[in-house]
Amino acid sequence: MPRVITFGELMLRLAPEGYGRFTDSPKFLATFGGAEANVAVSLANFNIDAAFVTKLPANDIGQAAINSMRRFGVDISKIKRGGPRIGIYYLEKGASQRASKVIYDRAGASIALASPDDFDWDNIFDGADWFHFTGITPALGGNLPEICETACKIAKNKGIKISCDLNYRKNLWSRETAGEVMGRLMKYINLCIANEEDADDVFGIKADDTDISGGKLSHDGYKSVAKQLAERFGIDKVAITLRGSISASDNNWAGMLYDGQEFYFSKNYAVHIVDRVGGGDSFGAGLIYSSLAGKSPQDALEFAVAASCLKHTIEGDFNLVSVDEVIKLSGGDGSGRVQR
Amino acid sequence: MPRVITFGELMLRLAPEGYGRFTDSPKFLATFGGAEANVAVSLANFNIDAAFVTKLPANDIGQAAINSMRRFGVDISKIKRGGPRIGIYYLEKGASQRASKVIYDRAGASIALASPDDFDWDNIFDGADWFHFTGITPALGGNLPEICETACKIAKNKGIKISCDLNYRKNLWSRETAGEVMGRLMKYINLCIANEEDADDVFGIKADDTDISGGKLSHDGYKSVAKQLAERFGIDKVAITLRGSISASDNNWAGMLYDGQEFYFSKNYAVHIVDRVGGGDSFGAGLIYSSLAGKSPQDALEFAVAASCLKHTIEGDFNLVSVDEVIKLSGGDGSGRVQR
Amino acid sequence: MPRVITFGELMLRLAPEGYGRFTDSPKFLATFGGAEANVAVSLANFNIDAAFVTKLPANDIGQAAINSMRRFGVDISKIKRGGPRIGIYYLEKGASQRASKVIYDRAGASIALASPDDFDWDNIFDGADWFHFTGITPALGGNLPEICETACKIAKNKGIKISCDLNYRKNLWSRETAGEVMGRLMKYINLCIANEEDADDVFGIKADDTDISGGKLSHDGYKSVAKQLAERFGIDKVAITLRGSISASDNNWAGMLYDGQEFYFSKNYAVHIVDRVGGGDSFGAGLIYSSLAGKSPQDALEFAVAASCLKHTIEGDFNLVSVDEVIKLSGGDGSGRVQR
Amino acid sequence: MPRVITFGELMLRLAPEGYGRFTDSPKFLATFGGAEANVAVSLANFNIDAAFVTKLPANDIGQAAINSMRRFGVDISKIKRGGPRIGIYYLEKGASQRASKVIYDRAGASIALASPDDFDWDNIFDGADWFHFTGITPALGGNLPEICETACKIAKNKGIKISCDLNYRKNLWSRETAGEVMGRLMKYINLCIANEEDADDVFGIKADDTDISGGKLSHDGYKSVAKQLAERFGIDKVAITLRGSISASDNNWAGMLYDGQEFYFSKNYAVHIVDRVGGGDSFGAGLIYSSLAGKSPQDALEFAVAASCLKHTIEGDFNLVSVDEVIKLSGGDGSGRVQR
Amino acid sequence: MPRVITFGELMLRLAPEGYGRFTDSPKFLATFGGAEANVAVSLANFNIDAAFVTKLPANDIGQAAINSMRRFGVDISKIKRGGPRIGIYYLEKGASQRASKVIYDRAGASIALASPDDFDWDNIFDGADWFHFTGITPALGGNLPEICETACKIAKNKGIKISCDLNYRKNLWSRETAGEVMGRLMKYINLCIANEEDADDVFGIKADDTDISGGKLSHDGYKSVAKQLAERFGIDKVAITLRGSISASDNNWAGMLYDGQEFYFSKNYAVHIVDRVGGGDSFGAGLIYSSLAGKSPQDALEFAVAASCLKHTIEGDFNLVSVDEVIKLSGGDGSGRVQR
Amino acid sequence: MPRVITFGELMLRLAPEGYGRFTDSPKFLATFGGAEANVAVSLANFNIDAAFVTKLPANDIGQAAINSMRRFGVDISKIKRGGPRIGIYYLEKGASQRASKVIYDRAGASIALASPDDFDWDNIFDGADWFHFTGITPALGGNLPEICETACKIAKNKGIKISCDLNYRKNLWSRETAGEVMGRLMKYINLCIANEEDADDVFGIKADDTDISGGKLSHDGYKSVAKQLAERFGIDKVAITLRGSISASDNNWAGMLYDGQEFYFSKNYAVHIVDRVGGGDSFGAGLIYSSLAGKSPQDALEFAVAASCLKHTIEGDFNLVSVDEVIKLSGGDGSGRVQR
Repeated sequence: MPRVITFGELMLRLAPEGYGRFTDSPKFLATFGGAEANVAVSLANFNIDAAFVTKLPANDIGQAAINSMRRFGVDISKIKRGGPRIGIYYLEKGASQRASKVIYDRAGASIALASPDDFDWDNIFDGADWFHFTGITPALGGNLPEICETACKIAKNKGIKISCDLNYRKNLWSRETAGEVMGRLMKYINLCIANEEDADDVFGIKADDTDISGGKLSHDGYKSVAKQLAERFGIDKVAITLRGSISASDNNWAGMLYDGQEFYFSKNYAVHIVDRVGGGDSFGAGLIYSSLAGKSPQDALEFAVAASCLKHTIEGDFNLVSVDEVIKLSGGDGSGRVQR
Repeated sequence: MPRVITFGELMLRLAPEGYGRFTDSPKFLATFGGAEANVAVSLANFNIDAAFVTKLPANDIGQAAINSMRRFGVDISKIKRGGPRIGIYYLEKGASQRASKVIYDRAGASIALASPDDFDWDNIFDGADWFHFTGITPALGGNLPEICETACKIAKNKGIKISCDLNYRKNLWSRETAGEVMGRLMKYINLCIANEEDADDVFGIKADDTDISGGKLSHDGYKSVAKQLAERFGIDKVAITLRGSISASDNNWAGMLYDGQEFYFSKNYAVHIVDRVGGGDSFGAGLIYSSLAGKSPQDALEFAVAASCLKHTIEGDFNLVSVDEVIKLSGGDGSGRVQR
Repeated sequence: MPRVITFGELMLRLAPEGYGRFTDSPKFLATFGGAEANVAVSLANFNIDAAFVTKLPANDIGQAAINSMRRFGVDISKIKRGGPRIGIYYLEKGASQRASKVIYDRAGASIALASPDDFDWDNIFDGADWFHFTGITPALGGNLPEICETACKIAKNKGIKISCDLNYRKNLWSRETAGEVMGRLMKYINLCIANEEDADDVFGIKADDTDISGGKLSHDGYKSVAKQLAERFGIDKVAITLRGSISASDNNWAGMLYDGQEFYFSKNYAVHIVDRVGGGDSFGAGLIYSSLAGKSPQDALEFAVAASCLKHTIEGDFNLVSVDEVIKLSGGDGSGRVQR
Repeated sequence: MPRVITFGELMLRLAPEGYGRFTDSPKFLATFGGAEANVAVSLANFNIDAAFVTKLPANDIGQAAINSMRRFGVDISKIKRGGPRIGIYYLEKGASQRASKVIYDRAGASIALASPDDFDWDNIFDGADWFHFTGITPALGGNLPEICETACKIAKNKGIKISCDLNYRKNLWSRETAGEVMGRLMKYINLCIANEEDADDVFGIKADDTDISGGKLSHDGYKSVAKQLAERFGIDKVAITLRGSISASDNNWAGMLYDGQEFYFSKNYAVHIVDRVGGGDSFGAGLIYSSLAGKSPQDALEFAVAASCLKHTIEGDFNLVSVDEVIKLSGGDGSGRVQR
Repeated sequence: MPRVITFGELMLRLAPEGYGRFTDSPKFLATFGGAEANVAVSLANFNIDAAFVTKLPANDIGQAAINSMRRFGVDISKIKRGGPRIGIYYLEKGASQRASKVIYDRAGASIALASPDDFDWDNIFDGADWFHFTGITPALGGNLPEICETACKIAKNKGIKISCDLNYRKNLWSRETAGEVMGRLMKYINLCIANEEDADDVFGIKADDTDISGGKLSHDGYKSVAKQLAERFGIDKVAITLRGSISASDNNWAGMLYDGQEFYFSKNYAVHIVDRVGGGDSFGAGLIYSSLAGKSPQDALEFAVAASCLKHTIEGDFNLVSVDEVIKLSGGDGSGRVQR
Repeated sequence: MPRVITFGELMLRLAPEGYGRFTDSPKFLATFGGAEANVAVSLANFNIDAAFVTKLPANDIGQAAINSMRRFGVDISKIKRGGPRIGIYYLEKGASQRASKVIYDRAGASIALASPDDFDWDNIFDGADWFHFTGITPALGGNLPEICETACKIAKNKGIKISCDLNYRKNLWSRETAGEVMGRLMKYINLCIANEEDADDVFGIKADDTDISGGKLSHDGYKSVAKQLAERFGIDKVAITLRGSISASDNNWAGMLYDGQEFYFSKNYAVHIVDRVGGGDSFGAGLIYSSLAGKSPQDALEFAVAASCLKHTIEGDFNLVSVDEVIKLSGGDGSGRVQR
């Protein structure tokens, strides 16, 4: 069983029940999530030995966060306990023309205040095959850019493959800082995951002729972005998620993979959305799984897109689907007929 | 901050959870609503100084009704307490081909038994800029037709603009009585809101070539209805909501505004419905807000239609959206992408 | 009021709330259902004197099962109490590309272990006009094939009409056993209900040129299946449900009826699904009702399809709709406009 | 199986979840209840053939009310459908020093507006052994006093035993009217159920030396009340419930029975309350069951007190306990040890 | 209607449903609370014109916090919007021997980072009769000690009465800092509320011979504490709450008031607890109400103790009881009999 | 960190919400539990390396069961997957005089049908310090008595300490079979846990002068039982739980430990019950923890009783408390004061 390490923030996610608005909701569904944690849980559900690294407060809320991942078999033994608090994000689910809304309350979280000494990367990477993080982790500031770079270096030295999802968050850092920091980290990356906006926001890499809101996607534009990313930083593979937002309830969902030579496009799914948060993360998990499983580029991409298509039908950040379920969908059965 | 007075009934709304049927539901969601109350709450959410006038029993259920509006900043100081009971409506939410069902239990409500002495309109209208009611208020019978007429007269004398949504309810009165009473009140009205059926039901004003159930709407038919309404009663502006009912889950939604000279048609929204009750009321609130904000006819209409489009995505009678959210949608972003 | 007897298993249905997955759900909605029980409840809601026959354990869970049917007016006085347990099925509701999942735990249920002495068919059929069961009942094994045959014989002797839904369940028996047992029972049947897969699975009867998963249905294929069924077993009428599975959220739904002479096809409904379990059962109930009401073949079919279309909008196995609601829809109003 | 007819109002009961207050509760538990309906359900749970007579509106809320009783096996075939509405009562559950609160909204209910023609008592009483109503039924006004008297006369003529719970409700009628009407009905009564306050409120019959709020109860006082009641109206048996209210969470509960010769006192139960509404009704049902079962006075009383003790531990108006459970408690096992 | 200003932090309160533990709870009840906000809401429920002053972020969670108080009629127009976040506290409700648990996450809240310019006290105190804050507000640090002192000075100058609840929180500041800051503020205080521990923790004032955990309270000890407090700081009145903790489910609750001359002790309540958070705050609100209403010391104390007794029976921080309900209890009716 | 292996059945527990009865409950709380699983979870919460051994079906319900234990850190890697189904128990929570009710549906469970080959005890016991099972495991029948004996032998050979809770279940086997099988296993046992009934039911060992239902417990009786058990089977230590059942809501709870020389009695706790299922299991876990931690007999007993006292305040089978919480209570603080 291959071993994957992911590193980032795990937040408490507070969401009104159903389609309730923040200003009128007496209950919050309390789950946990975060880009890299979501990848770890998805991988554990694929029966990968996935470990998640973060720092969480040594109180019961920190413990609840750990329990939420341990439930699905993620190795949580590398999590550092301490610091003042767990970060929070509030999620209000949208519908039809009303967009989902996210309010972040992550400043001062234990992970954001972590020190380099909190993580013994030699120990953490012992026995690992893959390392994954996203642009959010260094964006948390403090020592995180440095910690990420240290982790990348040590992983590289140990021959561990590294993947990174650009995941630009404008609330966390400026385009300038992001470009500078991520630019430094890119050289360690084997697999880069992005969407068109990320590449532009972080590195000023632009595609032509695409209109994301209108739901129309230009294949050539995506090819151009992927190629620029791969060439500028010497990355092996670049994957891009293609989301066509019709409304908060209905999206088109597909992906593209560039392996340095060819461009692969997946089939497209018309998704009726239950919860789209974590869609990109589940795509990343699908790619990592596929890579470790030695799938062909086209198969790897189809697996990742099918996996993340299914994520859109599941409440919460975590993608709770098995390899069998993904393969069944990527193999063509999206009819939704009852499985008895 | 302009001040708007609305007058009507506030009912307890009892709805099975989810898609439960009345005959098999152990819990009711207990909210409150009513055509004019809904307008007041929507206006308060637009930061308008909105006051709601009604009569509610002096018990805890009456107080709960008041609290539900006060929560959103509606001025409830003009509400009269007393009388025997609060009216109720039971709502069973439909889905797909199954229609939503409403059962009214509003007879004998405190407001329906109100006396002219219960409302001191001189005091109530002090400092007000706009007065709004709907055809439901006089339809409640008793002294309500007289009270409405008194209110209209006093408002008119004070130079307050008056809007009325025809809102014909066949359970409350006959077409004949409605035509007679509403005919008397129309002469005070500056802005009349209706749908095609209302104009026909109340005043026998018909449009041609339209098939509402089939989802096809004839623009010329609506123009004809609006023009007849405006001319017969000397109304400044007539607005008509254009609903294309595909199913209980999916509707088309648009509007038309006639300002005595031109006919304006809004863009159409394909809405995936969370809760359509109060859709027309939120359209009215949007128009009142737009008028007070001095928007152009086309902008006013687009604002009202976008506001009421969003209402369809929110549980309960009340439209809990801000001006910013409406403007974002009317400005073209209905893609439902997550707002972070 | 005509009297209908249905015979089969009633199971406890355990379903995570909303779209929750089995592996992450702290609560199960606890309802009851089973093919023949669902028919009985639907008929009771059509004001038919419907009695359900089964065997249930003499404990409080068995009582709860009984209560769930008695609530809707089903005559439960013929239910035998005893045996070890009630069967269970776990249902995870799918969405979009994620299929619904059913896990059966019905082995060792009281009904599966029933003895011929448990049911006094002479008494049970006293005053009855119709008898209905499905292929699931004999598939439960043990004495059930024999019990079903006894019931059919006695019903036939009393001049009671008999309907059977093939309902092949591969988890319960092999195609061979099913073909052998059902072949023996078919000769008593007046009305056979099936879908294309059933006829093939049980009797090897195939249609051409159809692709069920792709949502395209060939009318000629269905005609061929129905005719073969009718002719091989001398059945008066054969009805086939036509489901086009677009996804777990959206299906097309229609039906066909063959009365030995003509083939009737219903209109098609594009259904946005709340709960599709029991869809076929509600179709059967619609046909039985229509037959007892003396409707023409086309009307009978349209009633059955409209009834089962509505079932898809209701949570749980049971179809909680009235004759009026079905007629309104079959009469053409599927617009979902609010019924006040 | 003996047959019991009960006659009265069935109301929709709306209660905030848990200990929520009316003014801050987004959901109401929606159950149904009413003094005589509660007796019928309790008797059905004792396997008595219990029929409930009332008038309910011919809408889905009326149907839901019927379903709620049919679920437990009550014969609802004698219920008249029609009239405008179902009565409602709002219940806020108290705790510790905070009292439970009931708000009635029962004016204008279908039963309150019933006409004598709505009930064919000859038919209703066909095959009946016992008739039960309470002082609430005539208190509803309109034709109810007359209807009750008619029912009593016909029952008496048919040799049916009659029981009545005085159940004085000051919101429904004055002491004077109550005394006058109930005085007329008392002469038909075989078993009268009351508490000390009832006898005083309705007939001015007083006991000495008792302090109900303080939790101290004088046996002699109760004897005196029972004897006066029996003698004044020629009643066979008088039963009195003895409630010692320590707080909204803890009560003492016992009863007394006078059979015209002896006074019997039950053991006392210290009850930790889940829901005390319907406690008196379940006592009545226990007495009726015991009488029909031919129990001795002491046993009958112990059964009724144990049954109603258990009612205090069950949510809702209805007493959902079996004869076995009652006998187990009255036999001395109140230890609450797990029954496996 | 007298006007009261309270000043402090309003937090989001996140509590598992029922008796759920933090480490195993999928939902949090989301309400709002804080010592001074609780006082304001309680006063508003007593029909006092209560305004609450704080700083809340200009996002939807801040708005939800405001709505939660506006619902009950608190004047929220003086609340400053801005800053990064709302403070949070997590509450796990205890039972029997398991204590309730509170985890604070209030660092970096908008109010804690407020600047003196955020509050225009001249304007805020316009028309006010009373000012209330607790030791928690200055304990938040930053500019809060200074802001509190400014507020006290201006209030004093305007002749406004000032009350303060010591409310020592060891997580927020040391005993030394607390003693120093609170010592400075005490000289403005007319009414000081405390418990024995507070006086010791903040000022080193000790009583003798008391054992709080053991449930035994020495009257003389409390007298000594109150007298020391009053004399050291020249305070008019000192009130002390007397809690006897038997378990997390059962407490004794009483109070003492010292008016500079006499010591008054209230009756004691044996409370079966629903939610004890906010008990002290509701005691303070009761005293403020009583003072404004001109009650005698004994009556004022009994009112405050009865009000806070009732608070223990209500979920959430806020005391949702009316003056009538308090007076009924303080007048002696704690029997919990149903109020119809 | 010491390692403990527990072996037994893990069942799905289905319980109506709140105090709902089976016959009237639309939802079941779905948790998992079983005597030995409960011990493992409790130990994991004490930071013991606890592994649970069982056999569960290879479907999603089996996976959910595993997840429920993995969440709390139990090592689930030794669980065998396969077989037909998971056992179920239905739990209806009692209150006051109404007893809790358990309905078992465990026949045919995967574990009950397990074969000796399913468990490789050499591997399972690798690195283990303690082995625990209860009388329920062999009572499941089939190969379980043999499997238990094999496990005991291998554990004994490896020098692993063995504890066993007698846990007699009359539904699973007769006293005779129990006595025979348990008698054979007893010789491997170091620590035997029982209650007075168990010892009598399984081995005919009786105590005198005790009345369990009446809440009075004779110390001498328990001493006699413990001594007889220890002597007959050569057991090192015998522990007995002392439950005084006042009602389903209130129990007294204490324990006794006999170490072959002295008898130790714990303090008694008056418990207000949230959920008493698993109380005995949490006592066992407390004793195992204490033994591994080298506590003195009195301290070990006090720890076990305090731990299991706390279990009664937590919903579900699992005892979710930490060592710190137990020590705080056993150290004397049962006042339930809020922990901030």
